[in-house]
This record gives sequence, C-alpha cells and structure tokens, in this order.
Amino acid sequence: MIERLGPALAAPIFETVAVIGVGLIGSSIALAARRRGAAKKIVLSDRSADVLARAGALRLGDETVSDLSAAVRDADLVMLCAPVGANAEIGRAIAGSLKSGAVVSDVGSVKGAVVAALAPILPKSVHFVPAHPVAGTEQSGPEAGFPELFINRWCILTPPAGTDEGAVQRVKAFWEALGSHVEIMSAEHHDLVLAITSHLPHLIAYNIVGTAAELEETLRSEVMKFSAGGFRDFTRIAASDPTMWRDVFLNNKDAVLEMLGRFTEDLTALQRMIRRDGEGLFALFSRTRAIRRGIVELGQETAAPDFGRRSAEPPEPAA
Amino acid sequence: MIERLGPALAAPIFETVAVIGVGLIGSSIALAARRRGAAKKIVLSDRSADVLARAGALRLGDETVSDLSAAVRDADLVMLCAPVGANAEIGRAIAGSLKSGAVVSDVGSVKGAVVAALAPILPKSVHFVPAHPVAGTEQSGPEAGFPELFINRWCILTPPAGTDEGAVQRVKAFWEALGSHVEIMSAEHHDLVLAITSHLPHLIAYNIVGTAAELEETLRSEVMKFSAGGFRDFTRIAASDPTMWRDVFLNNKDAVLEMLGRFTEDLTALQRMIRRDGEGLFALFSRTRAIRRGIVELGQETAAPDFGRRSAEPPEPAA
Repeated sequence: MIERLGPALAAPIFETVAVIGVGLIGSSIALAARRRGAAKKIVLSDRSADVLARAGALRLGDETVSDLSAAVRDADLVMLCAPVGANAEIGRAIAGSLKSGAVVSDVGSVKGAVVAALAPILPKSVHFVPAHPVAGTEQSGPEAGFPELFINRWCILTPPAGTDEGAVQRVKAFWEALGSHVEIMSAEHHDLVLAITSHLPHLIAYNIVGTAAELEETLRSEVMKFSAGGFRDFTRIAASDPTMWRDVFLNNKDAVLEMLGRFTEDLTALQRMIRRDGEGLFALFSRTRAIRRGIVELGQETAAPDFGRRSAEPPEPAA
Repeated sequence: MIERLGPALAAPIFETVAVIGVGLIGSSIALAARRRGAAKKIVLSDRSADVLARAGALRLGDETVSDLSAAVRDADLVMLCAPVGANAEIGRAIAGSLKSGAVVSDVGSVKGAVVAALAPILPKSVHFVPAHPVAGTEQSGPEAGFPELFINRWCILTPPAGTDEGAVQRVKAFWEALGSHVEIMSAEHHDLVLAITSHLPHLIAYNIVGTAAELEETLRSEVMKFSAGGFRDFTRIAASDPTMWRDVFLNNKDAVLEMLGRFTEDLTALQRMIRRDGEGLFALFSRTRAIRRGIVELGQETAAPDFGRRSAEPPEPAA
C-alpha cells in the first residue's frame, strides 16, 4: 500500500514559502506542499549552486534563488532545511530581510540548540516555530525527495514559551496538510526523547559499521557478503548524511551522552550475562520482543517480516 | 520482485528427509524441498506436541512423528533445526536409530560448538555436514515459514576435516535446490565472521531496546510513538526468537566477546569525538556510508530507500 496525499486544499496555508536547503527533507516539503496546494508559491535556496541547479532542473519549486536575503524577502513561511549546524549563519543572513509577521520554522533533529542559536538572531517582528518532522530515509540530496515522505509520520513542534498561537496553528496546519500528525512539546523534552529513539540508534549503527570497517581485509569482504544476518540493517542507518548527523551529535551532546551512558551500562551487564547467565539473556530477549509489538500496534511500522524485504538482486556467485 | 524457486528437479537429492524442529527455518526447508522436489518424502518432528500438530495441519511435510528415533529411522538426510543448545540432547536421542550412510546436517548459527557437541555422539556410519543458511526473519514458529526464504541467500557448510566429499556435495546440491549460494569454510572462521555480521548486531539491538524498556514510563511510551527515527529498525532485530539467540550467545561466547570488545573500544572513542572532535565524527560517518554501497552492489540488499518501506498503517491520533 503506497499512501497518497489528499486532494488540493481550497486555499493555501501560506502564500509564499521559502525552503532554505534543498536536501531530502527540503525537496520533499516542496513537492508535498505543491501537491496539496499548501503554498501558493515555493522559493528554493541552497548554499550549493550545484544543488540549487539540480533542484531547478527537477522543478521542485517555482523559483530558485541563490541569494538568501532575496529568497526570503516575500516569504510568509521560511523553512530552514539545512543541517542544524548551519542555522546560525543562515539566521544572520536572512534576519534583516524577513517580512514583518513572517513565520520562521525549521526541520532540525535537535531543538534546544536550534532555539538557542536562532531565537536571539531573529527579529521580534517574526514568529519562530521550531519543528521536527520524524521522517526520512538514508538517502540525501534534492533527487531523494518524494511528496509522500511525511504521511502518517509525526511532526513535533517546540514553540518557546510566548510564541504567537496563530503562528503555531498555521505551522501545525501546514504539516497536517503534508500528511503528518503533529505533537507539541518542549525543546528539552524533544531532545531527550529523540536521543533514545533516533540519535543513539544512529550512533550505535555508525559505530558497529565502523568496527566492521576496521577489520582485517579478508574478514571485511566477508562481512559484506554475509551481511544478511542482521548487519545490513545497521548499514542502512549508517549510510545517512554525515554532515547532518555530525551536527545532531554536536548539538544534542548532553542528552546523547546521557542515553549512551545508560546503553553502555546495560551492555556491560549483558556482557556479564553471556559469560554466566543464560536465563538472564532469555528474560531480556523476551522483554524486547514486546516492544516491537507495541510499535507495530501504534502503526509506526509494517508487521511484514523482514520489513517485507524480499527483493534483492542475485548476489555474485562465490569466487 | 518476489523471487521464485525453479521447476521441480528430475530426481530428488535425498529420498527421505527428516526435519527435527519445525520453526521458521525447519518449516521453510520442508516447504522449499517439496516445491523443488529435492526430497521424495519429508518427515517432521518437534519436541512440542502443539508445534507438531500445527505443522501437520499446515501440511508442511508428508508425516509428523513425535518420537525422535522413529522420525529419523528411514531418513537419508536428517536436518537438525532446533535451537543450537538442543542439539546434543537430540543427537543422543537419534544416534542409535540413524541409517548407515545417512547424512546428518543442521542449520545452527554457530558451528564450532555444534561440531563439538555432535561429532562425538553421532555414529561413525553416518556423515555429519554442519550447515548454516544465512537467512531468516524476526518471526518464528511453523506458521512463519515460506519456501522462498533461502533464495539468493548464502548457506555456509563447515564440514570437519575428513568428511566424506560425496556427502558434502549432496548437502550443497540440496541447498542450491532451495535457491541458496553455498560457501565452504572452517567452523572457526564461520563463527568469527558471523560474530560480527549477525551475533553482535543482534546483541546491540537487544541491548538498545532493553535500555529503552528500562526508561521511565512516560518516556517509554514516547519512544514507541516516535520510533521512526531509527529505533524501530532495532526493534525488528530484537524481536527475534529468544531461545535461539540465548543459545547463539552461549555457544559462540569467545568470538562474540572478542567482537564486543572491539565495538566497545570504538564506542568509547566515538563518545570522546562527540565531546570534542566534530571532524572525526564526519570522517567516520563518511567511511560507514561506503560499506552500505558495497552490500547493495553485492546483491545482498535492496537499494530502495528505507528498505522500500512505505506501507505502515495510520497511527492512532495523538491523545
């Protein structure tokens, strides 16, 4: 079942939307917003002239504008879709050109650091509504985007205290138009929840694939060959965009290190069980099974075995 | 693309095959062997009367026999498909009833311990050819089996030195009939390769899902809700059969602890990078991306983003 976006809205939620940073998320927002008629006009900008040219060739928006202040000048919604570490610089470049009453939002996977970086820079005349669509694939770049990316996924808004309620509601309506379910929480709570659901899993996946990459050459080629036993799932996560993820870890350091600390303690206990406590292993493995069931029941995952994956091309024959 | 098994063979590879343990792997072997005509007759046995009754109702084989020695008496191939820790007991139960010249094989995810447990028990008049099909899903039980499970997957044979070459070739032909690519290596080397490609990934997945399960109640329910950020991939692996995996870790202790040691060292280095070395993170994350590409090129994985997964049912609306 491929999910579909609903029919076009009767009226756009924002007249002009500027998307700054046209990677997987930015391009998917542009495609979905146009499909739903959630924006009347979409302006794209990117620091890379090459990326911007490709976005233009793909007709992802109505205009491509390399100059940041020109790109945001008429925007009713400015959506920051660059890696988190670039937000302060972008904020400084656009602050003087934002329309009074414009809404500024972002898609960063960390929220506390984004609020800290942008809130002091943005003028009082605009509304800042930080957001995080919990959606993505391991691919990146403007060619990776697709309009269905956000359907049935969560989008978390973390408006600082005192944010204009009308602005929050319009950002909420925008994400709902793109197919998302919207939840509102504090930036601090967001960063703690995502540290365990997203940041730590990525860290662990990067680490195990890194451990494999350091193996003796003969062993390493066999690791790829026999990866179907579990390893290949980690490689998908560890194939995610390096810049984005460097910025996530540097900008959510405290929560990630806290969760990593818990993980490491548990791993030490598990190591001890392997040495001497088979029943402890069995009990743990039974508990973890129940968590999967909960996620499938919440509709955040397919129940099909092996992700429904039965489509690999034939491997090279053994040498 | 769903892969299909080829047409029926001109002649069976083994006249009678006894499958001992009718879980995901045993039931898939029975279904695939019948589909390809790789066996003339398939006898099923399982220590659980309930499982055996369900296997009978599903018509997975030609006969279901609860008594182990009766089940193997006429078998030309005895395929041990119970969790690894049960092999010694099964071996003792069948040793006196095996036909002279019969081939005994297994499907265990560890090989050194299986050889050590079975080789002294089995009579000299039979041929022991240990095997490991590197295939599976997170599901278990006779209902979980399907005949295409082994197509384009590797099956590793680890015959001890001096094993009859004709027996090895027949087991190889059997797995090739089921769609697998067969590789032969030593049990010791197998256990080292699988420790990193399969056992360590499962250990890590169990551990991170376990860490999440220990969280404060409010945080835990949100972990399930926002699991799309990466965590849910781990829950699939951590939903695998607890008995099977307890036995894997207990029986491949040395190789798993060796790889876990390397992983932990690397994780400590990564933790340090989060504190003070953004460029180190970027360099690591770029290296790991290349590994994914290698696996996709080897045909062991789909190149579709997010495993081609775009099929979750809608979640419950936010409370």
